[in-house]
Amino acid sequence: MSDQIAEAAARAREAAAVLALATRSTKDAALEAMAQELLDRTDEVLAANAEDVAAAEDAGTPAHLIDRLRLDSGRVAGMAQGLREVAGLPDPVGEVLRGSTLANGLELRQVRVPFGVVGVIYEARPNVTADAAGICLKSGNAVLLRGSSSARRSNAAVVGLLRQALASAGLPEDCIQLAPGEGHDAAKALMRARGLVDLLIPRGGAGLIRSVVEESTVPVIETGVGNCHVYVDAAADLDMALDIVLNSKTQRTSVCNAAESLLVHEAVAEEFLPRVVAALQDAGVTIHGDQAFTAFDGVVAATDEDWDTEYLALEISAAVVPGLDAAVDHIRRHSSGHTEAIVTGSQSAARRFAAAVDSAAVMINASTRFTDGGEFGFGAEIGISTQKLHARGPLGLPEMTSTKYVVTGEGHVR
Amino acid sequence: MSDQIAEAAARAREAAAVLALATRSTKDAALEAMAQELLDRTDEVLAANAEDVAAAEDAGTPAHLIDRLRLDSGRVAGMAQGLREVAGLPDPVGEVLRGSTLANGLELRQVRVPFGVVGVIYEARPNVTADAAGICLKSGNAVLLRGSSSARRSNAAVVGLLRQALASAGLPEDCIQLAPGEGHDAAKALMRARGLVDLLIPRGGAGLIRSVVEESTVPVIETGVGNCHVYVDAAADLDMALDIVLNSKTQRTSVCNAAESLLVHEAVAEEFLPRVVAALQDAGVTIHGDQAFTAFDGVVAATDEDWDTEYLALEISAAVVPGLDAAVDHIRRHSSGHTEAIVTGSQSAARRFAAAVDSAAVMINASTRFTDGGEFGFGAEIGISTQKLHARGPLGLPEMTSTKYVVTGEGHVR
Repeated sequence: MSDQIAEAAARAREAAAVLALATRSTKDAALEAMAQELLDRTDEVLAANAEDVAAAEDAGTPAHLIDRLRLDSGRVAGMAQGLREVAGLPDPVGEVLRGSTLANGLELRQVRVPFGVVGVIYEARPNVTADAAGICLKSGNAVLLRGSSSARRSNAAVVGLLRQALASAGLPEDCIQLAPGEGHDAAKALMRARGLVDLLIPRGGAGLIRSVVEESTVPVIETGVGNCHVYVDAAADLDMALDIVLNSKTQRTSVCNAAESLLVHEAVAEEFLPRVVAALQDAGVTIHGDQAFTAFDGVVAATDEDWDTEYLALEISAAVVPGLDAAVDHIRRHSSGHTEAIVTGSQSAARRFAAAVDSAAVMINASTRFTDGGEFGFGAEIGISTQKLHARGPLGLPEMTSTKYVVTGEGHVR
Repeated sequence: MSDQIAEAAARAREAAAVLALATRSTKDAALEAMAQELLDRTDEVLAANAEDVAAAEDAGTPAHLIDRLRLDSGRVAGMAQGLREVAGLPDPVGEVLRGSTLANGLELRQVRVPFGVVGVIYEARPNVTADAAGICLKSGNAVLLRGSSSARRSNAAVVGLLRQALASAGLPEDCIQLAPGEGHDAAKALMRARGLVDLLIPRGGAGLIRSVVEESTVPVIETGVGNCHVYVDAAADLDMALDIVLNSKTQRTSVCNAAESLLVHEAVAEEFLPRVVAALQDAGVTIHGDQAFTAFDGVVAATDEDWDTEYLALEISAAVVPGLDAAVDHIRRHSSGHTEAIVTGSQSAARRFAAAVDSAAVMINASTRFTDGGEFGFGAEIGISTQKLHARGPLGLPEMTSTKYVVTGEGHVR
């Protein structure tokens, strides 16, 4: 198995050396060809996908997982549209990040360059196949795609036509490959391909991400687990706070930037708790509360685990805290480092919260749901990093690159 | 052992939370107090160091290792001077890397923030203790220092007085700690402290770095192994080429940015080889050459291992290549990704080499010895990264930080 991975990675590395030198025009033409091929051959993709869906149904897969797996012509058109949007974004490769002339006359330039070979390990959604391929291509990286086995026919159909599009645009087909093999052993071989694969990005649930982080010797960017908090400060506008809590929790529950925990300053608890409990319960949310919250009908007593739980559902943990510092302490202990929001009219509270909270994003008087590459104006994202090394927050095209120093002299020696 | 590390890391984390909010003035005052304390109490440091040196001599340690271990008042003054230079550098924390107002009015800021707790694992030089402590303090990180056991008395003396200086400046002493325990088990406990330690930086020889990269579950920045190449192109000024080869190889041999391999375009081999062989041999360099080089007296035939060897000594591997692409291929196969130099008068050759070589630094008509934080004008460095994730090349203060997005609205919801 590791031989198959090594062989695929070696071909990816050869392709990456060509892709690293490709101009933006060539890459954009390839992305356009990929989009057009998806549109022209939607029927093939849907036929392959129908087989995956039928197999999943036979296996008794739950309906919400089948919904993630299922493609229709609208979803395929969305994949094509995504590739065209990536084509429209600036090319990060070649961007000069620092430049200066040193005292001795040497010209120093720090330039963005591709990583080389990127592995992406993801779960059932076949649209990730095209998204990840497009982002990696534009950032100059060859990609090894490791999707879920339940989507293998869909992924094979998509990758097959993307590779043909690459060839038609004059780029090596091996810029985009399915990682060979199936099952955990094949995934593990990819995670152990240090030196062959430059970077591994897991996209999926907490279990997948934990297993990649623990087992991988290839550098990993950890993505997507969000135990996000909303803290309602003593100086909050309570109408605004109600809007932000409801939006953060209920606008979409299955995503990593949804709120999972509510903290309320004790000074506003008496006024705010009845309102927020009623509003959340009206929206169908189950509240796992501390003593102050369990005074309300229907609120469940929170267990120790609740404070660490990413529900991804109409559930929220909730507590009253004696002040901002206690809220920050609670967040430091329980947060996954994704997004935390404060609602406050106090400039000093906002400033202190933003400085003291150690997460990828801090929202001041805004919903946690805004932590998103699209919302941030990055145009495309391959995930949201919750780690501190390399990239934190939405991973757009620039985050998919490394850098290189180019130093030019005329015979300079030390 | 891992309990001791966990306990030290927990104290470091508490200290880091305070340090993250410290102003530049406070941090610079602490650095100045640290420098002054080193100068005022040089005698104590030298006394502790004399014990380490005596123990090393008793153990039959080779002279060049004892030289690295030994401090004198000049070296201690150098450590103090280094801390003052770090105080003079800009504070990276709080720097705004991106800022924009989104279409919906949300204000987006990407701000540099400290990592939190950084572990540094290093070998015999006790001056690294003060250097690493200073760089981590200025970048807002608490540090766990894990030096060599042969320098333990020196390191304890230095850390003891640095901690007193911190306290006098109003910062928590636990911003700077020696990692508890000795021996491999203690080092391993530090490498496994994922979630407690945010980043690990090994500083030392190839063996140390490999062991940290392989055993660590904490994110690592790989530093310092340099199998650096000089390629003399067909269009090279051969006088310039001779200067650059000699300087890259011989100006200082024990450092990671010294050249270890020479590649010569066949078109200039007949003219250049006699000159470069004579000059290198005059400088005392042993050449491990291919067939073209072994035609000269005293050149040893290169083995397969030579192409991958970082000699750190007056030795060099050398080969003639049929052209630039062959040089790039050779470098891609054998380089450690540190620094490669081209000597050429051809603009297109320089451009192609700089684009195709995948290393942290590419020198055009300049010595490999320039890849250095001081030479690049960064003022202080904690090592030279040869990895692609997070930071590549000299690690200055900005590279010792992560980032955070701060998003400000007035009740924004999706």
